[in-house]
Amino acid sequence: MNRHRLADLLEEVRTGELAVGEAVDLLRDLPYGELVEAKVDNHRELRQGYPEVVFCQGKTEGQVREILGYMIRERSHNVLATRAEPDLFSAVSDLHPDLRYNALGRTIVLQRERIQVQEGILAIVTAGTADLPVAEEAFETACLFGAHVERINDVGVAGVHRLVPNLPILRQARVLIVVAGMEGALASVVAGLVDSPVVAVPTSIGYGASFGGLAALLGMLNSCAGGVGVVNIDNGYGAACLAGLILRS
Amino acid sequence: MNRHRLADLLEEVRTGELAVGEAVDLLRDLPYGELVEAKVDNHRELRQGYPEVVFCQGKTEGQVREILGYMIRERSHNVLATRAEPDLFSAVSDLHPDLRYNALGRTIVLQRERIQVQEGILAIVTAGTADLPVAEEAFETACLFGAHVERINDVGVAGVHRLVPNLPILRQARVLIVVAGMEGALASVVAGLVDSPVVAVPTSIGYGASFGGLAALLGMLNSCAGGVGVVNIDNGYGAACLAGLILRS
Amino acid sequence: MNRHRLADLLEEVRTGELAVGEAVDLLRDLPYGELVEAKVDNHRELRQGYPEVVFCQGKTEGQVREILGYMIRERSHNVLATRAEPDLFSAVSDLHPDLRYNALGRTIVLQRERIQVQEGILAIVTAGTADLPVAEEAFETACLFGAHVERINDVGVAGVHRLVPNLPILRQARVLIVVAGMEGALASVVAGLVDSPVVAVPTSIGYGASFGGLAALLGMLNSCAGGVGVVNIDNGYGAACLAGLILRS
Amino acid sequence: MNRHRLADLLEEVRTGELAVGEAVDLLRDLPYGELVEAKVDNHRELRQGYPEVVFCQGKTEGQVREILGYMIRERSHNVLATRAEPDLFSAVSDLHPDLRYNALGRTIVLQRERIQVQEGILAIVTAGTADLPVAEEAFETACLFGAHVERINDVGVAGVHRLVPNLPILRQARVLIVVAGMEGALASVVAGLVDSPVVAVPTSIGYGASFGGLAALLGMLNSCAGGVGVVNIDNGYGAACLAGLILRS
Amino acid sequence: MNRHRLADLLEEVRTGELAVGEAVDLLRDLPYGELVEAKVDNHRELRQGYPEVVFCQGKTEGQVREILGYMIRERSHNVLATRAEPDLFSAVSDLHPDLRYNALGRTIVLQRERIQVQEGILAIVTAGTADLPVAEEAFETACLFGAHVERINDVGVAGVHRLVPNLPILRQARVLIVVAGMEGALASVVAGLVDSPVVAVPTSIGYGASFGGLAALLGMLNSCAGGVGVVNIDNGYGAACLAGLILRS
Amino acid sequence: MNRHRLADLLEEVRTGELAVGEAVDLLRDLPYGELVEAKVDNHRELRQGYPEVVFCQGKTEGQVREILGYMIRERSHNVLATRAEPDLFSAVSDLHPDLRYNALGRTIVLQRERIQVQEGILAIVTAGTADLPVAEEAFETACLFGAHVERINDVGVAGVHRLVPNLPILRQARVLIVVAGMEGALASVVAGLVDSPVVAVPTSIGYGASFGGLAALLGMLNSCAGGVGVVNIDNGYGAACLAGLILRS
Amino acid sequence: MNRHRLADLLEEVRTGELAVGEAVDLLRDLPYGELVEAKVDNHRELRQGYPEVVFCQGKTEGQVREILGYMIRERSHNVLATRAEPDLFSAVSDLHPDLRYNALGRTIVLQRERIQVQEGILAIVTAGTADLPVAEEAFETACLFGAHVERINDVGVAGVHRLVPNLPILRQARVLIVVAGMEGALASVVAGLVDSPVVAVPTSIGYGASFGGLAALLGMLNSCAGGVGVVNIDNGYGAACLAGLILRS
Amino acid sequence: MNRHRLADLLEEVRTGELAVGEAVDLLRDLPYGELVEAKVDNHRELRQGYPEVVFCQGKTEGQVREILGYMIRERSHNVLATRAEPDLFSAVSDLHPDLRYNALGRTIVLQRERIQVQEGILAIVTAGTADLPVAEEAFETACLFGAHVERINDVGVAGVHRLVPNLPILRQARVLIVVAGMEGALASVVAGLVDSPVVAVPTSIGYGASFGGLAALLGMLNSCAGGVGVVNIDNGYGAACLAGLILRS
Repeated sequence: MNRHRLADLLEEVRTGELAVGEAVDLLRDLPYGELVEAKVDNHRELRQGYPEVVFCQGKTEGQVREILGYMIRERSHNVLATRAEPDLFSAVSDLHPDLRYNALGRTIVLQRERIQVQEGILAIVTAGTADLPVAEEAFETACLFGAHVERINDVGVAGVHRLVPNLPILRQARVLIVVAGMEGALASVVAGLVDSPVVAVPTSIGYGASFGGLAALLGMLNSCAGGVGVVNIDNGYGAACLAGLILRS
Repeated sequence: MNRHRLADLLEEVRTGELAVGEAVDLLRDLPYGELVEAKVDNHRELRQGYPEVVFCQGKTEGQVREILGYMIRERSHNVLATRAEPDLFSAVSDLHPDLRYNALGRTIVLQRERIQVQEGILAIVTAGTADLPVAEEAFETACLFGAHVERINDVGVAGVHRLVPNLPILRQARVLIVVAGMEGALASVVAGLVDSPVVAVPTSIGYGASFGGLAALLGMLNSCAGGVGVVNIDNGYGAACLAGLILRS
Repeated sequence: MNRHRLADLLEEVRTGELAVGEAVDLLRDLPYGELVEAKVDNHRELRQGYPEVVFCQGKTEGQVREILGYMIRERSHNVLATRAEPDLFSAVSDLHPDLRYNALGRTIVLQRERIQVQEGILAIVTAGTADLPVAEEAFETACLFGAHVERINDVGVAGVHRLVPNLPILRQARVLIVVAGMEGALASVVAGLVDSPVVAVPTSIGYGASFGGLAALLGMLNSCAGGVGVVNIDNGYGAACLAGLILRS
Repeated sequence: MNRHRLADLLEEVRTGELAVGEAVDLLRDLPYGELVEAKVDNHRELRQGYPEVVFCQGKTEGQVREILGYMIRERSHNVLATRAEPDLFSAVSDLHPDLRYNALGRTIVLQRERIQVQEGILAIVTAGTADLPVAEEAFETACLFGAHVERINDVGVAGVHRLVPNLPILRQARVLIVVAGMEGALASVVAGLVDSPVVAVPTSIGYGASFGGLAALLGMLNSCAGGVGVVNIDNGYGAACLAGLILRS
Repeated sequence: MNRHRLADLLEEVRTGELAVGEAVDLLRDLPYGELVEAKVDNHRELRQGYPEVVFCQGKTEGQVREILGYMIRERSHNVLATRAEPDLFSAVSDLHPDLRYNALGRTIVLQRERIQVQEGILAIVTAGTADLPVAEEAFETACLFGAHVERINDVGVAGVHRLVPNLPILRQARVLIVVAGMEGALASVVAGLVDSPVVAVPTSIGYGASFGGLAALLGMLNSCAGGVGVVNIDNGYGAACLAGLILRS
Repeated sequence: MNRHRLADLLEEVRTGELAVGEAVDLLRDLPYGELVEAKVDNHRELRQGYPEVVFCQGKTEGQVREILGYMIRERSHNVLATRAEPDLFSAVSDLHPDLRYNALGRTIVLQRERIQVQEGILAIVTAGTADLPVAEEAFETACLFGAHVERINDVGVAGVHRLVPNLPILRQARVLIVVAGMEGALASVVAGLVDSPVVAVPTSIGYGASFGGLAALLGMLNSCAGGVGVVNIDNGYGAACLAGLILRS
Repeated sequence: MNRHRLADLLEEVRTGELAVGEAVDLLRDLPYGELVEAKVDNHRELRQGYPEVVFCQGKTEGQVREILGYMIRERSHNVLATRAEPDLFSAVSDLHPDLRYNALGRTIVLQRERIQVQEGILAIVTAGTADLPVAEEAFETACLFGAHVERINDVGVAGVHRLVPNLPILRQARVLIVVAGMEGALASVVAGLVDSPVVAVPTSIGYGASFGGLAALLGMLNSCAGGVGVVNIDNGYGAACLAGLILRS
Repeated sequence: MNRHRLADLLEEVRTGELAVGEAVDLLRDLPYGELVEAKVDNHRELRQGYPEVVFCQGKTEGQVREILGYMIRERSHNVLATRAEPDLFSAVSDLHPDLRYNALGRTIVLQRERIQVQEGILAIVTAGTADLPVAEEAFETACLFGAHVERINDVGVAGVHRLVPNLPILRQARVLIVVAGMEGALASVVAGLVDSPVVAVPTSIGYGASFGGLAALLGMLNSCAGGVGVVNIDNGYGAACLAGLILRS
């Protein structure tokens, strides 16, 4: 409800078209309704082609099935489910013929709306092969956000020379997602080589003292290079969300 | 703004006493204003005699002086400042002749409104003398909340027999605040002896492996006795807030 | 044993009705017996309709079976078993025909006594679907405590507008249990909107850097809103105990 | 050195204008020189009006004086020194008459070049007064990056209603920096209300169990709202770097 | 080799009974041999009836089988294997007909020598049923050390009154082992009630924030009662070793 | 009050020497009084020559002065104050002419009663010079407990050969206190060489990753040698308490 | 590409043998190419007989199969795969008839090139049997590096006398790898006995408070003996790499 | 005492030159004496020109003065004191006219013996200016070890191109010490570029989430490049010890 609709409503009260009691009922919930609607409207407008997302971990098959089913029935948006183990996909794959499963990234995608492609390149860079599942989750998410993604894999800082041939694409990107476990140094090194924002995703890959990704997380937070924003451990989805918002900003 | 005031306003529009444009201006901010007002009204009504609080730690003397000065000038509420070091009190003590400083609890209090006394006893129990500063902060806060406070000091579990003579008052209390450092076991023991809710405050008192209160904090969170709610380390103020709300609930 | 019974006993000694030796036997255990009885009496009186509780985790099937069997045979109280995996329930379900299993909350309930309903509403609020198992454990426990529970699910702060329509019920509650994983911010936000005590339950739901619920736990302990008492990670039972005591206080 | 300059050089070799030996000398360092120059050129072009930065913490007065002096003598760029305590500023203030000290943010700024203003608003949002030093550091940095900054202070989630009147400016911002200590929940709440990237800065403000900002850090990393990138504790400078790159991306 | 044997040996050299070369060979390894023998002799004498111990965790079935087999073949000592899962016992049970398995304590015992009973009582106290496996490990170990063990189970501080009837036996013990998870407060409470040394064993029993026994460990280390020595989490064996040495000291 | 005194009292009631009302008054507090008295009696008898202890850290000068003054006035026991900084001693030194200050150990001792010497040697072993303050605290405490102390300093495992000449005294000791910072390995090595109980005290001495003594603490808890009981970081007092009880056990 | 090849190329340009455009193409990538080649050449020369390594953990069977297959097809180097579970080996064992599996060390080795033996002994020392898998990984790696390895097993500091007979070989070694879990003290003790560099590998072996090897890790980092370099928990491969480089340095 | 001296001694016994009693006295302490002497001899021979070291932190001025004075009086070796604050140096500077203080590295050096220069270069590489104090400590130590040191400063990975011009010297070094705070990534990057062992020293430099150097420590331990040995946080001395032993190995 904006200023104009409010003026109209009051005009109707003034002219007697609308009874005071009815107007009270309409206006009483205005504070909350307005907030809600504004938010939702705002989102609807902005989110054309954006995915609806289900985080499957910690949910039962029944719960995921119910949520996905509701989304598929009621809405026209694109749907993304993350952290979906193969058994879970088997349990829901009959919900729609176009559900697509990415076994490495553990994502389920249903694309039903055209996605508006964003301008500029989103580079997804991984340190090693074992970081690929997280990169895949980021990739699937980014695609639903309309990002033009370039992949650069296996360029961990143990061989910093491997980064060099990729400098042109790294520097061309408008935003970069760097996925790395162990010490996570790739984020610092990449951020030191480019002038675009870097979204750093620590992964839980590593020997014992990686402590489930803590080493990479701390490494990325302490990056001596500026322009690095860190997301949660193994959170490829969150990285792609942030990168997607940056592309659109 | 409640239903009645809204109806009055609309009636004024209907009768022409209020122009539509003026009504739009009044109502335009209603969603937010309403939320704010509702919240504030609600609070004002409930919080008769409740303190306005300033957390001084991390604020400059100038900032505290400005905030306290504003509170003192503009409002009639009672005022509480916590974590106020002696130097800070010296720097603001001229703001009002009735400012009272509790050196142990590091609190500044200005009581200007009568406080409605709550029904039932709030027992504040400490394990040792070194826990008193936190207990004092809780005490000053609770008094401004209108709590009838009973103090039981120095009954740490190293001498659980010292608790026994205090069992009657412990069991009579409607709510208890247990303040303990080291292993914080007093919270479990007290909670096992009473049937009222226990607010547990870990303190940073202890040898090295207390890790600044972490040991007591974990101890209290893991209490094998039910009915224990834990607040932050050394947070006497927060404990008294929670206890105050429980007394009033 | 109170003053009157003690006087009677001594009177019997004085009159010779009771031999000194018999009195010694009766009184010898008085210190401890008194303590025990006082506690138990006190409890029995207060705990009408309260559950006897078995925490199954870490116990063998045989141990749980023995404990539950003893409770069912010997006592008339209501019985609650928490952290009971489906296999465990299968192993004990023959103990009583009225044993009821809540698969989501992993609780076994046997209600044999009427439960006295407490005054006021206990609102159980969850941030997301994955927090439901903990909320269910709290719900089952609270019901056995006689609480009138209202459930508000899936209102995590990622969409704070979803909280708004629930403000009336939130503000009406005498006590609230907020169940949230990830950053656990819901506890702070709810506590900032109501004037009743909030029992915060961190859950172990989240990506890697939730560190099994540590992030939510620390978040709730550091709540910038007053009136929050925190219980252990995933401890729905403990939250309901505290809330139940608050309702009764 | 780009393709064209390389072709010219070879052409000179071909025509004999340049001796092979001379060409070898020019080209021998090409690998490193090129990398360095490319980097520097790239930066110089992009960084018009960008600050040169000195992180003073852990450096002696002599070291800072030497570095600042060099920057002031040799280069025309704008200069920013962060983590500069008042004593340090006194020790270097004679280096240039235009050095400006921000006592709250502990920054020293020397602006000598016109800064190109970036399009779009950068909103810097703080939870409480004690977070202001970090916000000031971010503010000074962002100004040197050419950001159009809007400040929204003291809107912590303890009073989420205080956020509501600021929704229009929050939603209008192209990028937001959220500065919060304690549980850091403001980042999640803001990110849930806007559709722009949020740079979250945990601060070390809080009671004991904030563990020097760890609670806020974990809270922000676990944000249940998407689009949040986290920087190091109290790192206002790093947040502004990231936000600046996003504005320019 | 002591002074007397050394003198004898030299006397033999002096009288020519022993050639210099032979004496060199005997004495050359003396430094190490002496150290080794002294140690071993010392142990043999002191350890009559003491168990040889195998810590099975992290060893393959083949390794355990080889070690146990060697012990059984070559030596007459009593044998104890800890952390032996049922499958492991099945894999080695044919090594000797008298191998005895304690399924709760996961110990394998082979007693072949008479054990000299130590003077004084060793009380093993547990907080709850789930702590029994650790207590069983301690019990089996202590028995092999010749301790006269008294068991007191399920007296956690949630019901401190349950401790009271056990005060006589607690105070009579020469040394106590307290086994407790959750907050581990039982160690402090018991130590506050007795004047004998308390060996505290934290267990990994508890809700999430016990962090695998860390809460109980820190609690016990921070015991406000004196006379508590702490061993590793779940280390019933180590506790019994320490208690056994105390009994013998 | 034991069985005999209880029988006497009842006999007096029976014979009329004691009125029922008086007997009720005597017996009414029996449960608690008995518990208290038993404890205190027990202690008094056992603790001849034992110190009363004040832990000064976290207490104000006024508080310590008050507590010490009370002890000195009212009781004849020996007094020990730990963690007493030089300024604190200056502030209380006038309380009694015989107060003795140990500047290295930061202890204040007042010995007024003869102390019964315990049988057997208590060896206090330190790894390095920087561990001496903790060892001094242990030493002063142990002396008040009547221990016959032998000191072995600066035998850290970096030079394990330095331990060798001390083997005889180490093996002769009935109990040993090992004080070590850094990795704390000395406790394991000593425990592997002796057959007496070892009380291990981690100290906060070390480079950064000692984390205030955490490294030594974990090292000692994980000792691969049996018979080690660990106390809190830098807790020389606690170590001596435990060792004293072991000597007496 | 070195100076000579660069001069040749330019000479060809000068003489017209090479067109400018072709030379640009060859030189355009020189900066990066040179870096890469230099690195690779350097490596090839130095790494005669060095293994190519695959870290299997976190990789799918398909990924490992692809990487190993490529290595086997395309290159003549020796191949090492670490963290290869038995199932993984079964899935790749058909790739080459000479693949050899070490079940304890979980390594797959394919040796096809002669390995140049390094001068001097590399001693691999373990504290206990459970540390053998890590030592095996180090052993297999070291062999491929050409090290002459001597193994000393089961000499943990619980029995420091067991080290003594091994002193000659320990002191003869040019470099030592010490593999130990629990408190990891063996590294300090060994480093205190020798004058060669010690590579310390903490293992995750131990009771609860080893926290997955953290205790040993911290212990080794805090070694009071100089000359200890620490690698990651359970990282036998990394230890052997470092030791191999030291042998060659 | 070696085989030859032992034979001589026995020969003297045989010939009567040495009485049996005297020989017993000489041999009685042989086991320990031999161990000690062997160790010391071994050291003396190897350590020509090596420093005697005093770690001043945690020692009183009096203690340091006594230890240094003893070293200066009694021995001819070179002396190194680390962690010596300026006040401490003032307090001991009169002990010898040649004591030299390095204010940045906080070291005191007394060189009295010629130091034998080791073959090969030791490169000390720092990430930033704030890491210099640690590098200075390493430098002073390494010089006393006879290392030929090359310094490369301020080449943190934020500008990895700054490393490139230093590649020749990096690759020429026989061993490298990398000193870095924040994320410590420099160690990985350098180790990826060279084929010599890298000693990594994490420093405590950084914003809040460096947690006193923990981030750099974990980063270095998790280095994805092989050949990295890590020492304690800020432990420049330890790094130089290890590097010195490697140079000599």
